[in-house]
Amino acid sequence: MTKGKFIALEGGEGAGKSTQARLLAEALRARGLDVVVTREPGGTAGAEAIRALLLGTEGEGWHPRAEALLFAAARSDHVERLILPATERGAWVICDRFVDSSRAYQGGGGGLSDAEVMDLHRIGSGGLLPDLTLLVEVSPETAAARLDLRDAGNADRIGGRGADYHAKVSAAFARFAEAEPARFARIDGNGSAEDVHRAVMAALAGLLP
Amino acid sequence: MTKGKFIALEGGEGAGKSTQARLLAEALRARGLDVVVTREPGGTAGAEAIRALLLGTEGEGWHPRAEALLFAAARSDHVERLILPATERGAWVICDRFVDSSRAYQGGGGGLSDAEVMDLHRIGSGGLLPDLTLLVEVSPETAAARLDLRDAGNADRIGGRGADYHAKVSAAFARFAEAEPARFARIDGNGSAEDVHRAVMAALAGLLP
Repeated sequence: MTKGKFIALEGGEGAGKSTQARLLAEALRARGLDVVVTREPGGTAGAEAIRALLLGTEGEGWHPRAEALLFAAARSDHVERLILPATERGAWVICDRFVDSSRAYQGGGGGLSDAEVMDLHRIGSGGLLPDLTLLVEVSPETAAARLDLRDAGNADRIGGRGADYHAKVSAAFARFAEAEPARFARIDGNGSAEDVHRAVMAALAGLLP
Repeated sequence: MTKGKFIALEGGEGAGKSTQARLLAEALRARGLDVVVTREPGGTAGAEAIRALLLGTEGEGWHPRAEALLFAAARSDHVERLILPATERGAWVICDRFVDSSRAYQGGGGGLSDAEVMDLHRIGSGGLLPDLTLLVEVSPETAAARLDLRDAGNADRIGGRGADYHAKVSAAFARFAEAEPARFARIDGNGSAEDVHRAVMAALAGLLP
């Protein structure tokens, strides 16, 4: 049994990451692969309990440093209990958001340095990085149009932040991809779900058995 | 208005920290000081919500790294929202457990290095240390006798660990006190509550106005 692969999908709100995770999982299963689809924050019972604390809109909210520590705690549980055991048994893990989201949201827009976010990831999760990170990039207009399709009342605490914040986040993701071209594939997410899926499969070609 | 003081009480289970925190608060209030008594994990609404996740006995529990991140997240909220605002306005904050408990429990007994625990504290809380840390030390027999007085059914996930674990924790506290004699006062906690309180007040004499 060869070790599985760990694929993360990253990008801002409304980029289509969840749709692409589902289409990718279907395509890999059609090739006979063992596939686990998961998300952050969450993916295990413990991490989902932390997710509920993080995204709840009650109380006075979390300041950026407590928020970053909670994300790192959820990720630590997720890596230890789901991601590593799955890839060890040979599965492909497709994860909707991973540490680059912490770097972009808590680091880029939230007041921590990138080194601090990565220190938390080193301590919590041994610094694990995906085999491939698919950065799905859309124009602000595409993101806004897709987010309008969702129930506005469902905007959670983080998704509900302003346009400037989200522009900073997109710029941060682009910088990470430029700095680590071997780990990132940048995907134009503005087209139809099928067009974007074809770009995702092309980016994955080198990893497929 | 002069800045207040931040006093932490540390020690193993059954050392009498909570009793001493109460007696100390009464003595300081009798001198006209503004006193805030708090505890970790907890002390703010957010930190108490994390405490409930940490000490709950349901599910499969937290592995040491996720646990350390959750403690650091609770501490970050507590420092930012309660401890710093209180000392800034001139209050004395008496805290039942602080970062040395994380060093002793997650570091000494739980598999993280001391440097990792302190990295989390630096990122989460700016590395804040108490003006004075009162280490209340009791013999294993005293601790066991006091713990027998509590309802055994109330043993939480961390308090319910074995004797070897608690011996390691006590040894870790003693090492921290030896390494930082100016920040620590070691208090013999084996006597009556009144005897121990007198030792606490003697240790505090240099800080009192």
